[in-house]
Amino acid sequence: LSAAPESVRAGGMVALIERKKRGGELDEAELRWICDGYLSGEIPDYQVAAWLMAVRWQGMSDAETLALTRALEGTGATLDWGGLERTAVDKHSTGGVGDKTSLILVPLMTAAGAAFVKMSGRGLGHTGGTLDKLESIPGFDVALSLDALRAQVRRIGCALVGQSPELVPGDGALYALRDVTGTVDSLPLIASSIMSKKLAAGAPVIVLDVKFGSGAFMRTIEEARTLAAIMVRIGEGAGRRVRAVLSPMEEPLGCTVGNALEIREVIDTLHGRGPRDLWELVLELGTHLMLLAGLAADEERARSRLGELRDSGAGARCFAELIRAQGGDPRVVEEPERLPSAPRVVALTAPEAGWVARVDARTVGDAALELGAGRRTKSDVLDLSVGIRLLAKTGDRVEAGAPLAELHAARVEDAERAGRALLEAYRVEAEPPPVPSATYEVVG
Amino acid sequence: LSAAPESVRAGGMVALIERKKRGGELDEAELRWICDGYLSGEIPDYQVAAWLMAVRWQGMSDAETLALTRALEGTGATLDWGGLERTAVDKHSTGGVGDKTSLILVPLMTAAGAAFVKMSGRGLGHTGGTLDKLESIPGFDVALSLDALRAQVRRIGCALVGQSPELVPGDGALYALRDVTGTVDSLPLIASSIMSKKLAAGAPVIVLDVKFGSGAFMRTIEEARTLAAIMVRIGEGAGRRVRAVLSPMEEPLGCTVGNALEIREVIDTLHGRGPRDLWELVLELGTHLMLLAGLAADEERARSRLGELRDSGAGARCFAELIRAQGGDPRVVEEPERLPSAPRVVALTAPEAGWVARVDARTVGDAALELGAGRRTKSDVLDLSVGIRLLAKTGDRVEAGAPLAELHAARVEDAERAGRALLEAYRVEAEPPPVPSATYEVVG
Repeated sequence: LSAAPESVRAGGMVALIERKKRGGELDEAELRWICDGYLSGEIPDYQVAAWLMAVRWQGMSDAETLALTRALEGTGATLDWGGLERTAVDKHSTGGVGDKTSLILVPLMTAAGAAFVKMSGRGLGHTGGTLDKLESIPGFDVALSLDALRAQVRRIGCALVGQSPELVPGDGALYALRDVTGTVDSLPLIASSIMSKKLAAGAPVIVLDVKFGSGAFMRTIEEARTLAAIMVRIGEGAGRRVRAVLSPMEEPLGCTVGNALEIREVIDTLHGRGPRDLWELVLELGTHLMLLAGLAADEERARSRLGELRDSGAGARCFAELIRAQGGDPRVVEEPERLPSAPRVVALTAPEAGWVARVDARTVGDAALELGAGRRTKSDVLDLSVGIRLLAKTGDRVEAGAPLAELHAARVEDAERAGRALLEAYRVEAEPPPVPSATYEVVG
Repeated sequence: LSAAPESVRAGGMVALIERKKRGGELDEAELRWICDGYLSGEIPDYQVAAWLMAVRWQGMSDAETLALTRALEGTGATLDWGGLERTAVDKHSTGGVGDKTSLILVPLMTAAGAAFVKMSGRGLGHTGGTLDKLESIPGFDVALSLDALRAQVRRIGCALVGQSPELVPGDGALYALRDVTGTVDSLPLIASSIMSKKLAAGAPVIVLDVKFGSGAFMRTIEEARTLAAIMVRIGEGAGRRVRAVLSPMEEPLGCTVGNALEIREVIDTLHGRGPRDLWELVLELGTHLMLLAGLAADEERARSRLGELRDSGAGARCFAELIRAQGGDPRVVEEPERLPSAPRVVALTAPEAGWVARVDARTVGDAALELGAGRRTKSDVLDLSVGIRLLAKTGDRVEAGAPLAELHAARVEDAERAGRALLEAYRVEAEPPPVPSATYEVVG
């Protein structure tokens, strides 16, 4: 446990709350004392709750946010990939509907010569997190010990696992308290939570996918830009190479929302048959990873290398190897029909002809939740087979009665209920919508 | 227990915290649900702590502050003095060094024909609270049951007791949490805490003594004015007759600081031998009580009536009757040497000649604390006999080597240590200071 700093010996936790409340700053020793003391039970949760609300109120400078990140990182073990031949890379997405980029990037970047250890969560909401998606692959084990993880990365260069409870236990504890005290939506708390896990995971290269829009936690690009800048400065302050990509989350990423359905789309994409928007974002994030890891000399060469690795099947083979290493059935990569599938597939049809002007990501997510693809509460059990496949997205022409989407459901009633919700996500207009900009804003 | 309002059924306590955090308002049903739920243990303290900090951040409108006051009042029993012949009056002071006005006003106003039930606390700091001062009277019992209290008021018209645990239990619980979460200094929380106890105590007439200055909780007259205005509006909103007096607390009130020493000064004042500043404030507060209770037609007649009641000995006799009713030795009123006295009395002398320009109240309080007159923590045991008697106050001429004050101590070492602290309180200058304004600002 951290020794109490002088300020704490003089005034205890109340003095630190008072200082934060008045807009002052805490230093790393003080924040370390709070994080360690909360974990050990020496600082009661009501004092930590008051401090969290004071942080939500007054914010934190870059220096204080970095100090909190370091303090959180220090609550547990940290990984060090310095002994590898490969450069370790990592990425994080702030989350969106249909986001399966990690599952494509991990094998592709490993094929490119990086080491990629991706720790993921389960998450609440629309669909499961990356872990749930992976568990739709028969046999896949996401719970590796740190020793098994290190051995696998030395052997095959990558791993896709759950957040280790040995890393940053303070973050989980603090997040649980934020969740019940109205202090989730604080940028420095969000940034330090994300970055503490990235720092502890040990990769010197980190690319952040910060999403904005109706289906994202950050509703506007301005908020996303602010969060991205904070996280990049934390990472750089901790000596990492970091870049953030701001990506829109107005409509779902790719065409599938639902755990096994998304794994199918990952496999399709690795085979060169994936949806364009998904592949574009993979290329964008992958390019920054390549450049920061020194695996490509410039952007153009990074992009073409990633294309080659896909087209040669190297990425797909790497995914199969990863699945085998973690106990899953690697045949799914060539035979995706081995993934669980829902007994009922019901089409949602367009009530009238026109151009799709919008497919609202959040509403699609809610419809997937109706089908059982996601969790409303932590104890909900997912149906990994159910979900939504979008057949028409923004900019597509549809005729009256033509299918807009497929609902993969356990029961016809579920499909009907979710179909009514999904129809609300679609806006069909008489004129084609403007073509959206295809470039991403990059921070760092 | 209050039924959960609709908002709570929908979003729980987190929804209420979120609303407050964004600057919204809670209504009386929601605040009642929080107060009752916290007391019953159904709402965990960490959620109440986060809400308190959100209140400290966003403040409260008058309507919300009144609603919280009502919600707190509703956590316990309330008193009703409607059946008395006399009009019940009450007063509250926000606290200062050497403040013993309640002990003079209660007998004086009772002699004037009011009913006066004063509930007081013990408090931390410089000296004990009113209760501790009373307990320096041998045998005096401050813990009456509500039934005993009602019977005594019917019989003799007054009582001086501790805050009943049956009244406003929610305030004590909330205050204890505020104390350890950095949320004490919120005007709506301060105002609702004070006024909930005044409303529950049932008097239709309330006079508030809101102190400002170095020795007061409110450092500036502006803060005091704001707090006074909030409390007056709460009281009026609840249908009471309320007025607030803003009184300075730069130097101690009267000449004594310390429990038994202050009781001596109370007795001196009731006998017409008290210090001028103390009597002036008693007259000011008493005048407003007389006017609001309909016991005097105008300010001049109120003041002269109070003077008569003092000079005739009616106030002193009333004090003796009150002491007897509560088990104390009433002979102290004529023989104050029966009060406990400290074994050592050491003089503090002026190092140089000049005019006293300032006797800093807070520093005098700290010196009294050094002697053992006050509590640093709730568990400290007071020495009721010790304290300070100021022999020179602002505006007085002193010669080098002449006594500035007496230190009444248990041991000579205590007196020496406290004497060094007390000397810091005095500022002696070559020129006489300007004569301070003798008028009080009144709110309401």
